[in-house]
Amino acid sequence: MALIVQKFGGSSVRDAERVRNVAGIITDTYKKGNQVVVVVSAQGDTTDDLIEKAREINPNPSKREMDMLLATGEQISISLLAMAIEHMGYPVVSLTGWQAGFHTDSSHSRARIKKIETERLHKELDKNHIVIVAGFQGISRYGDITTLGRGGSDTSAVALAAELKAELCQIYTDVDGVYTADPRIVKTARKLDEISFDEMLELATLGAQVLHNRSVEMAKKYNVNLEVVSSLERKPGTKVKEVVSMEKMLIRGVTRDNNVARIAVVGLPDKPGIAFRVFSLMSKYNINVDIILQSIGRDNTKDISFTVSEDNLEQAVAVLNDNLSALEAERIEVNDNVCKLSVVGAGMQTNAGVATKMFEALYEAGININMISTSEIKISVLIDEEDSDKALRVVHDAFIN
Amino acid sequence: MALIVQKFGGSSVRDAERVRNVAGIITDTYKKGNQVVVVVSAQGDTTDDLIEKAREINPNPSKREMDMLLATGEQISISLLAMAIEHMGYPVVSLTGWQAGFHTDSSHSRARIKKIETERLHKELDKNHIVIVAGFQGISRYGDITTLGRGGSDTSAVALAAELKAELCQIYTDVDGVYTADPRIVKTARKLDEISFDEMLELATLGAQVLHNRSVEMAKKYNVNLEVVSSLERKPGTKVKEVVSMEKMLIRGVTRDNNVARIAVVGLPDKPGIAFRVFSLMSKYNINVDIILQSIGRDNTKDISFTVSEDNLEQAVAVLNDNLSALEAERIEVNDNVCKLSVVGAGMQTNAGVATKMFEALYEAGININMISTSEIKISVLIDEEDSDKALRVVHDAFIN
Repeated sequence: MALIVQKFGGSSVRDAERVRNVAGIITDTYKKGNQVVVVVSAQGDTTDDLIEKAREINPNPSKREMDMLLATGEQISISLLAMAIEHMGYPVVSLTGWQAGFHTDSSHSRARIKKIETERLHKELDKNHIVIVAGFQGISRYGDITTLGRGGSDTSAVALAAELKAELCQIYTDVDGVYTADPRIVKTARKLDEISFDEMLELATLGAQVLHNRSVEMAKKYNVNLEVVSSLERKPGTKVKEVVSMEKMLIRGVTRDNNVARIAVVGLPDKPGIAFRVFSLMSKYNINVDIILQSIGRDNTKDISFTVSEDNLEQAVAVLNDNLSALEAERIEVNDNVCKLSVVGAGMQTNAGVATKMFEALYEAGININMISTSEIKISVLIDEEDSDKALRVVHDAFIN
Repeated sequence: MALIVQKFGGSSVRDAERVRNVAGIITDTYKKGNQVVVVVSAQGDTTDDLIEKAREINPNPSKREMDMLLATGEQISISLLAMAIEHMGYPVVSLTGWQAGFHTDSSHSRARIKKIETERLHKELDKNHIVIVAGFQGISRYGDITTLGRGGSDTSAVALAAELKAELCQIYTDVDGVYTADPRIVKTARKLDEISFDEMLELATLGAQVLHNRSVEMAKKYNVNLEVVSSLERKPGTKVKEVVSMEKMLIRGVTRDNNVARIAVVGLPDKPGIAFRVFSLMSKYNINVDIILQSIGRDNTKDISFTVSEDNLEQAVAVLNDNLSALEAERIEVNDNVCKLSVVGAGMQTNAGVATKMFEALYEAGININMISTSEIKISVLIDEEDSDKALRVVHDAFIN
């Protein structure tokens, strides 16, 4: 008898038919003699509908009340899923985030899990119940409902699998695994049978939308066996684990991320500590900075360019403009028509030719490279957004097939 | 500085505009220097929509999961209302039933409040927050979300007013007070300025839908000053209190309840203990029985007729049929095309002519009386449902105006 954690996203439970389908997957797992703990997101468009309801009333509501509102989305889906399982004749109970013992810090809308008190969960498992847990949510030490922000339900599932020492944590989505590139754009993309945590982490961070990087980080930290699998077709998915069997593939995948903007701080004095000042400002406002390029400008000045997520662009620019004189900068320039294209693979650590091959493929397709960033297992380049589809295809085909 | 509890029903917060209107009423009360605790129901049709969602998945879900689902309705409305008040610039916090300390028994779907732990509430009031509480819901000792069933939000408000020793508990609805009869049917109906707890209790029990009898019972028990007032017009409502100033009116109101069915247990043996057996069966299944009529039948048998709420009809008939031989009864007969018409007023205690006047008015309108039931301050008759509008008008006009 194994303990298996299964996570289902919003599209997997978007209507009654999908809820019944998911109930079928869960009960099949339970029937085989496993203990099953399920983490569910809010149904389909529920979260967007709730946000819209809030906007009508207050364009800028407090995060505390927004969390109160949004947490109802998962509470609806856990109860409906439990009802579907009841209807099939299996013992089941649904638990909200706080009932399942998810204690978080009090950063509303992007809370971090501090601990999971599993007393209630174990009590329900001991009664042979299938346990359905609301993902994405927890409770702060003030007794307030919090939400975990982006990728929250994946993180809930992995944290629960770690805490319960589950044999396996299955992330069900509407794709059937992790691909070498987005199969909607790159027809020749291949599904991976296995991928390492590190590779998955790069892919997740770089815009592959199957798994959120927070959840992969956590899975790596606690060595949780992850599997990305389809909720619509019953077939093997992609296993994400510490060590994967060697394959001949040099790279594991190509991703692109259009949710990127480039900011240039132009005309900075050419003296020490300037970069530090710029980036400490960004970190003060919790704005993640990615690719960084520092160039010498004219007249003893220099420019610092970096990329941020488009979600943070407005705030980043406002913060920089507010501090323009403190930074001794001339002006801020912005370009949000850019795209980050990355190749990822543990294989490239020992192969210097990867970068060359990537740049060559882009050059032959006439695509200009703005910025470059590398790590041990990935190479990212910033290109014009209009080139992104073509770039994805040519780079993918240069490495894979 | 007074502490005022205000309760708003589902229609008072059904859309963004209504939510803003309610926020205006609340902040006006707060601006006058009062502490304000607000109890809200789920928006408009939310509860029905959620029930429909559940039905699609499981026609007979467990009450525990149904409560989990339905409790989201109030959680949505408290957060939206709090956002509206935030937008107006006032300090506010929303609390779910469990956050507000509503501890109930574990009878899901019709839980009873056992105690209210007001620690969190007092903490928020001490911070000068307007506190918005989810009505209708609480938490059981197992940590499960419960709902209070019909009239639950009124009950939440009155219980809170009692526990906090509030100066006043205002029940906002879409009518502007308690009327001598339903003004949609009886054009000559008058609004009452005051009514006693006992009278209100009879009216509430007898089908006047402004206040639920559970909440009136509780208000009477803890002597909570109640006021029924309109959320749409700013004008005085109806005060409900222990002692009301004398008025010349003999009766306080006329109500009718179409949610009534008559059951006849036919052909029972004419021996002691038979009525006891019938009604102990009903109480075993928690079915409330109202007007009772016992008649001698033919051949040493007798019939027992009684009324139940139409909601309980199916179950009552099933229980009786299952026990037909134990009861030694011949058969069960049912009539759900009946209506209970009642006149209520403390004045009738000392006036024997009330019944006569009522029966006369019905006789003159050619309306037949099936059953009669009386208490110190009310007289109810069972009539055909098709006569109910006419009966309401003629009886109302016989006493009032």
